[in-house]
Formats: sequence, structure tokens, C-alpha cells
Amino acid sequence: MKKLEELTHLLSNELSFIDLPASPSNLYDPLRYFLTLGGKRIRPILTLLGAELFNAKADKAIPAALAVEVFHNFTLIHDDIMDEAPLRRNKATVHHKWNQNIAILSGDVLFVKAYQLIAKQDPKHLPDLIQLFNKTAIEVCEGQQMDMDFESREDVSIAEYIEMIRLKTSVLLGCALELGAIVANASENDRKHLYDFGQHIGIAFQIQDDILDLYADPEKFGKQVGGDVIANKKTLLNIKGFSLANEEQKTELKNLYNSSDFNHKVARTRELYILVGARTSCEEEMQKHYSQAMKALAEISVDEGRKSDLIQLADSLMVRIS
Amino acid sequence: MKKLEELTHLLSNELSFIDLPASPSNLYDPLRYFLTLGGKRIRPILTLLGAELFNAKADKAIPAALAVEVFHNFTLIHDDIMDEAPLRRNKATVHHKWNQNIAILSGDVLFVKAYQLIAKQDPKHLPDLIQLFNKTAIEVCEGQQMDMDFESREDVSIAEYIEMIRLKTSVLLGCALELGAIVANASENDRKHLYDFGQHIGIAFQIQDDILDLYADPEKFGKQVGGDVIANKKTLLNIKGFSLANEEQKTELKNLYNSSDFNHKVARTRELYILVGARTSCEEEMQKHYSQAMKALAEISVDEGRKSDLIQLADSLMVRIS
Repeated sequence: MKKLEELTHLLSNELSFIDLPASPSNLYDPLRYFLTLGGKRIRPILTLLGAELFNAKADKAIPAALAVEVFHNFTLIHDDIMDEAPLRRNKATVHHKWNQNIAILSGDVLFVKAYQLIAKQDPKHLPDLIQLFNKTAIEVCEGQQMDMDFESREDVSIAEYIEMIRLKTSVLLGCALELGAIVANASENDRKHLYDFGQHIGIAFQIQDDILDLYADPEKFGKQVGGDVIANKKTLLNIKGFSLANEEQKTELKNLYNSSDFNHKVARTRELYILVGARTSCEEEMQKHYSQAMKALAEISVDEGRKSDLIQLADSLMVRIS
Repeated sequence: MKKLEELTHLLSNELSFIDLPASPSNLYDPLRYFLTLGGKRIRPILTLLGAELFNAKADKAIPAALAVEVFHNFTLIHDDIMDEAPLRRNKATVHHKWNQNIAILSGDVLFVKAYQLIAKQDPKHLPDLIQLFNKTAIEVCEGQQMDMDFESREDVSIAEYIEMIRLKTSVLLGCALELGAIVANASENDRKHLYDFGQHIGIAFQIQDDILDLYADPEKFGKQVGGDVIANKKTLLNIKGFSLANEEQKTELKNLYNSSDFNHKVARTRELYILVGARTSCEEEMQKHYSQAMKALAEISVDEGRKSDLIQLADSLMVRIS
């Protein structure tokens, strides 16, 4: 989709122009580095498409779009510290390349930059933009905390897991779209439907990610297949697997947790999740949210033709499974 | 000053009512804990007095006042991680009582809370409030980074040190006052003078703090006298001490860095800073900023009588020296 590539390029370019002073270099060099690590810039593209959907020029929503991307990068810098991740997009994370204190503080300053970008939009939209942005930022933090809490819990329910991914990753997609809709003076009803579209696409995408981690074609996937299983990570597959397994299968799954033969561990877990119906159940859950997204999009009171970019973008996110 | 006590009480009370959900408890319990650790609430009081100065009711500026205090607490939570501080106001710091990841994340969420509070003010003031708040937040981060950078530098100049304390601690006092002035529809000129008043009082207070650390009456001071000297911390006394000392005195000061006889180290450093004129020079610098503060206050176009609360507050901050 040529348009998406163009928007990715436009936004990466705009990001490189964000005003960052030279000094203190230990505060701003990490940000110059991190903001140019690349990525598909899906979130800010959503903001631009959200504005276009309601007949505004994409240009009009660029500050809000950049704010979303900058906020997303802030959360990545802090999450990488919490996850002790050495790499992000195959490059050293900020806390790894500099140090942890610098990562905390440059993350903080990046967060303020997001608000500075939002504040560049027309003052008449500011109360709505800020309110949505604040609410979303808090939810993203709540989702990250739930994710961390889940690490030490054995009784995470399916509903709790879906709520965690909704907060941690999906509300930001809804927010990104709605910010664009606010800039384009969309009605509250339309704004809400567009937000729901983004939120459900986000949940579907995240479930797909869980499934792909174990069932993707290794040659197409680009990262180690089964990484979540090897790390005994809580995913929807894992939670559904245990909830659907009989006692014997549960024991086998638990024993696999401690297996040091990773090839066997991944292969057998993959089989078991199919046998107990976890894979199918996850795919159904994913499909349910995809359908809810499309239903929300259908509710929006603009010509169907105007929705094609969003449908294409959603489909481009979801086709990775086959 | 009875009024200040009343305002402290009012603000502590309002802080305890800030809307914090029960769950995730690992995110919000630390904030409930930290926001009620106490303190003089000087910054939010400044916002209320800033509004009153221009004939607005203090009530009108309470959300902005709370935003300043909440922001200040956010910076404390993150600074405590960076400084590896176990205690804050004689209670365990958040990263110490919970853990570091929780301190990073609950700090982040507190930062958003500050923006939520700002957004409660009248929308017509929002652009100005947000712009000032953003600028200040970035400067505070820059000041903290400079402070961390200084730890590993031997060549910090007096001007750089003053700039660091201006950014790290003083701009927030100026900001607190100006937020109140914005809410009260003060003119840009008056806002600027009031900001300058706060900023210079902040610098004077911080220099006083450096002096007190070494020259306070131990019975009145409430913490260990000479703590900065024992930790070889860079302070204005220390920088001026080295810049004014002759070669022999410099050698003696350097040797004291490594002394494990802390009583001698503190006592002799105290003497040397007097001998080389560092104490007097610091007191002059402090007085200079105090005078600049009063000059800025005098420029504000309201009846002198209306300024008495601010003068009393400034004096109450500055009398600790004698």
C-alpha cells in the first residue's frame, strides 16, 4: 500500500525534525538515537487517517500524530528498563547503551515532548485532546503494571489477560485514531466508534502476535518462533491452554515448563495447544475482536469509500497469520 | 504565619482526595503512600498566593496548585531512584518500599495526574498553563541531568552550578507562582516579574541550603551538619572554596576529600571555606538573588499591600540561616 509507505516516510522525517537541544547531551542524545531507530509508525499514521476520515487534511493532525509516536517511544524506553531488555529493533536499548538513570530521565523528558506536540494543535481542540491523551497514558501505565503483576501470578483469567493487553497496547491505537477525529471536528458518536475500531484491532493484533510467536512460518516471522514458550511467558495461548487441558495434559504442560530441551518444549507445547483447542479458541477470540472492529467502523457516519484506507491498514496488520 | 499553616493544611487535605483507583494496587498504593508523606507544600501555596496577588480567589487555582505539588512528587520518586536514596522525609522511598520498576511506573502515572489536574482549570487558560508547565517540566529534567553529569566532573564553574540549581529547583517556584497569575488573568509583564521573583527566591534558598549544610546550628538544623562535605558533594561552597583557595589550601582541601576522620574533615573544611572567603562569597551570591527577587516583586503592578503574603513567605524561607 503505497500511501502507508509514504506516510511512514513523512512521519519518520517529521520525527527527525523534533526540536531537541544539544545540551545536556546525556539527556538529548538518547532521544535523537531512539526516535530514529525506525519502525512502521502505525500509531501516528492512524492519527492522520483518523483526521482524513472526517475530511480534514492529514497535515492538520501532524503534531498530534507525532505526540502519539513520541509517547509510544517514551513507554518503550521505560518498559525496556523494567523488562531489562538489551535490544529494541536489533539496536541497543537506551538503558543499555547509556545507563538506567539516563533512560529514566530521557524517557521523562520525551513524555513532556509529547504534551508539547499536542499543545501545538488549535487551542479549541486542546481540552478534548489533552483529556483523551491523559486517560490513555494512565491506562497504558495500568496495563504495564498488570503485565508485571501477572508474572508472579498463576491464576490469571482470560478476561484479565484481555483487559491487560487492551490497556497496555490497544487503547493507544484507539486514542491515536480519535485524536485525528477530534482535530477534524468529528461528532462524539463518530469519535467513539473510531476509538472502538482501533481498540478492537489492537486486541486482535495482539492476540495474533501471541499465536504467531508459536505458529508462524519461521522463515517469514523474522524472530525466534516459540520465544514466549521458552520463556514460560503468560500469553492467551498459555492461559487458554491450561484452562482447556485435562489433568494429564496440564501435568505435561507444567513439566514442559522446566524442560531444557527447547526444541522439544516448543514442538510439544505447540501440539498440545492444538490438541486442547487453545489455538482454535485464540483464533476465534482474535476473529471476534476483528469483527467488533469492523462493526464499529461500519457505524461511523461517513461514506464507505472514505473508510478504505483504514480497512486496508487493518488488513495489512492482520494478514501476517497465514 | 497562620495563613501559611492553613494553606498547608488545605492543600494536604486536597491531595488526599486526589482520585486514585484501588487497582492495580502496585501502581496506586505507592502514590497514596507518597502523597501523604507530608511536607510544607510550599510550591502549591505559591500558586494560590500567585492567584490572590491578582485578586482571584485562591480556590480558583487549586487544581493548578495540586498539579505543581503532584509534579514535584513525581520528580522526587524518580530522583530517589537515580540517587539510590533509601529515605525521603524519614520514610522509605517508593523504590525501596516496593521496587524500582514500580517506582518508575507509578512516577510516570503521577506525572499524567499532574496534567489531569491542570486540565481541570478553565479551558481559556489551558494553552498558557500547559505551555508554562511543559517548559518547566523539561527544565527540571535538564537540571537533574546536569546535577548527575556534575558528579563526574572536576571543572564545574560557578555559573554552571547556579544554572543547574536554577533549572533543577528554582524554575518550579517561578512556574508555581505564574500558574496562579495566569488563572487570575494577570498581564504578561506581571506574570514575568512574578516568575522572576520565584526563580530568584529559589536560587537564594538553594544557596542557603548549601551554606546551612555546613554552618547551621546542629540543634536547629534537624539533620547531620556537614553531610555534603562528608559525601564530597559539589555545592556552591565547594566550588567557590576551590576557586578562591591558594595552592596550599587546595592541596589541603583535596586531602580532606579522602579523610576518614569525619569530625576533622567537616571542622577543617568549614574553617578553610571561611578563610578563603567562600562562605562570605556564597552569602553575597544568596543576597544578590534575594535582592533580585525583591526587585522583581516591586515591579509588579499591584498595591504593595497585596504583596505582603509573598514577602512573608519568602522571608520565612530565608531566615533559617541565622
